[in-house]
Amino acid sequence: MNEKSLIFPADEYRNRITGLQREMAKADLGALLLTTPADVFYTTGFLTRFWESPARPWFVVVPASGDPVAVIPAIGLMLMERCWIGDIRTWNAPDPVDDGVSLLAETLTGLVPAAGRIGIPMGLESHLRMPVADFLRLQDHIAPRQIVDGTAAVYRVREVKSEAEIAKIRTTCSVADAAFDRVPEFARHGAPLSQVFRDFQVALLQEGAEWVSYVAGGAEQGGYGDVISPAHDRPLMTGDVLMLDTGAVRDGYFCDFDRNFAIGRAADDVRRAHAALFAATDTALATLRPGMLACELHRIMTDDLQRRGAAPGGGRLGHGLGLTLTEWPSFTPHDTSELREGMVLTLEPSVEIAPGRIMVHEENIVLRTHGPELLSRRAPSELPEIMG
Amino acid sequence: MNEKSLIFPADEYRNRITGLQREMAKADLGALLLTTPADVFYTTGFLTRFWESPARPWFVVVPASGDPVAVIPAIGLMLMERCWIGDIRTWNAPDPVDDGVSLLAETLTGLVPAAGRIGIPMGLESHLRMPVADFLRLQDHIAPRQIVDGTAAVYRVREVKSEAEIAKIRTTCSVADAAFDRVPEFARHGAPLSQVFRDFQVALLQEGAEWVSYVAGGAEQGGYGDVISPAHDRPLMTGDVLMLDTGAVRDGYFCDFDRNFAIGRAADDVRRAHAALFAATDTALATLRPGMLACELHRIMTDDLQRRGAAPGGGRLGHGLGLTLTEWPSFTPHDTSELREGMVLTLEPSVEIAPGRIMVHEENIVLRTHGPELLSRRAPSELPEIMG
Repeated sequence: MNEKSLIFPADEYRNRITGLQREMAKADLGALLLTTPADVFYTTGFLTRFWESPARPWFVVVPASGDPVAVIPAIGLMLMERCWIGDIRTWNAPDPVDDGVSLLAETLTGLVPAAGRIGIPMGLESHLRMPVADFLRLQDHIAPRQIVDGTAAVYRVREVKSEAEIAKIRTTCSVADAAFDRVPEFARHGAPLSQVFRDFQVALLQEGAEWVSYVAGGAEQGGYGDVISPAHDRPLMTGDVLMLDTGAVRDGYFCDFDRNFAIGRAADDVRRAHAALFAATDTALATLRPGMLACELHRIMTDDLQRRGAAPGGGRLGHGLGLTLTEWPSFTPHDTSELREGMVLTLEPSVEIAPGRIMVHEENIVLRTHGPELLSRRAPSELPEIMG
Repeated sequence: MNEKSLIFPADEYRNRITGLQREMAKADLGALLLTTPADVFYTTGFLTRFWESPARPWFVVVPASGDPVAVIPAIGLMLMERCWIGDIRTWNAPDPVDDGVSLLAETLTGLVPAAGRIGIPMGLESHLRMPVADFLRLQDHIAPRQIVDGTAAVYRVREVKSEAEIAKIRTTCSVADAAFDRVPEFARHGAPLSQVFRDFQVALLQEGAEWVSYVAGGAEQGGYGDVISPAHDRPLMTGDVLMLDTGAVRDGYFCDFDRNFAIGRAADDVRRAHAALFAATDTALATLRPGMLACELHRIMTDDLQRRGAAPGGGRLGHGLGLTLTEWPSFTPHDTSELREGMVLTLEPSVEIAPGRIMVHEENIVLRTHGPELLSRRAPSELPEIMG
């Protein structure tokens, strides 16, 4: 038996379902159809790395009232039975003739009246994890029921984390804190960046991560070029600015923050960039309050960097965090999402040190009534230098 | 500069595009629209773990003739510029008003005549990695051009691996071989399974994996219950059968195979189960030839297990492998896909030792003219026992 598969007591999941059903009522939804690892885990506690295989779709249906129904491949039955879900319907997947479509259609038509509307997340930052051809077939099978936009119902609930969830994310952040403390042990002059990436993942596992879904970073002279490229094999050398960023996972919850290091003495412009990022983060920590909009926080950080003579980087300056490495909202000029109490967020200002050389700086927080509470341990105010 | 981002010489990608365009001509497709990490990597060489963030869609358009066009978030520009793609169009994502839809529509209408058809993978084992609402908007924008099923065009090309790809998968398999050799070092009596999972991931990284996208397994008395549950914290004890399965990644290519171990002396039924799985795999290795159907290989393994008095497990008994942990086809009773020369496949028979206790056994192969060539090092014929 696997005592860990539930992660939370059943009441945590019941509260989530109640919250979803409240939003569903507002949107006149007779059911929600969920397909992604995060949404399935959120509603059921079903946690597995098996999602890595694209072979099979998995479905959870949340009715307007009552408990959710899992419609899943038979290979997941034993694990789902250890979750709090009572109604589990399975088929032998992958089936080229009918890969769960008729079973799912039967489930939906049994729960939703003919005039009813079924919501799916279909907005920004979402996707539907099932074949498009099967989705079209499903729509035919369940007509005249309509599939409509259920994004808001899911997002407004999932974006506010419970204390139990916040505790999980804090734990994952502390794993990354401990791994970052060890970076000077292996990120030494002469170590290839690709080896540093490996050693960092090893450190995360040794410090308590269950898996490491994301490691990124860079190391180049006087600042890195981007933050998404795979690691190069060039040895670290004096003058490099090394950044490591991680989304480690424990009990299904992510952290997402980075740390910067100078290899040898940091140049003046590099130290100034780090100081500006640190100060802009301090400003965000001091001023962010529930009720602000995502675009307002973007402006606060951008203005602060500019006041300090730094050139703010493009792209978003932070985002939601929790069941995936990144969640909505996004701190961009155009995102008008309200920042709410209980949201877990990243603050991620970036600056351009010179053309093609950037620096980013990231912390994880939970937004409380009176402002942010750090979940990551605050980065040092001075850029750490790794000598000799 | 990051010299590794291309992975293969540009000719490798050009050959792939030529192959896709040949299939597109058969299906009367004016373009292919690709959205998944595997399809984007396959056509461009763009390799990053940044896909872990669900925030942004990424698009590659393969026209009926000429080079592909990348339509991507600006954050990916620098990395895509190091790939072989010349035509890269970017927008600032995520954008809640227009997250690349109009740029993508403009690209498609520029490449495909009004009466043309645009294929997307929409069949079994596929999904579309973009918001459904944006997909509906895109269809409006590009009308009267139609979006149709392009699954076969993509699958028929991707499923036959080049020698360069086979070499990559062989290398990843050898990383896992080396890590499996070290299992007896850490999977000792008294070690919690969750720690064994961590140590195994560390071993994979130390032996050369760049990241570890998948680790699964189980350890229970006389056989495990399933193969997808997270690791429990119970210490290994005499009588446990331990299975570890991994999809490690190097240069973007996966392995996917498992190994079994007895903790202490293996019981007779456990040894018999392992022997039956080993023999069924031998039978598959000896008889599999290009031109067979996936369902025929399923029957060969099932019949062989039954002849030996073993109870074949449900579910598929192997599948394709390469750019993702699992690819089509699936060795099930209903999959009539033709097994072709150059396919990389897993052979994965399973048996039920007793109700609720199973054993699985997996090897990775490439199918040659005269039969399978192993990419994983063949498992030992006798179940290894980890003593004391």
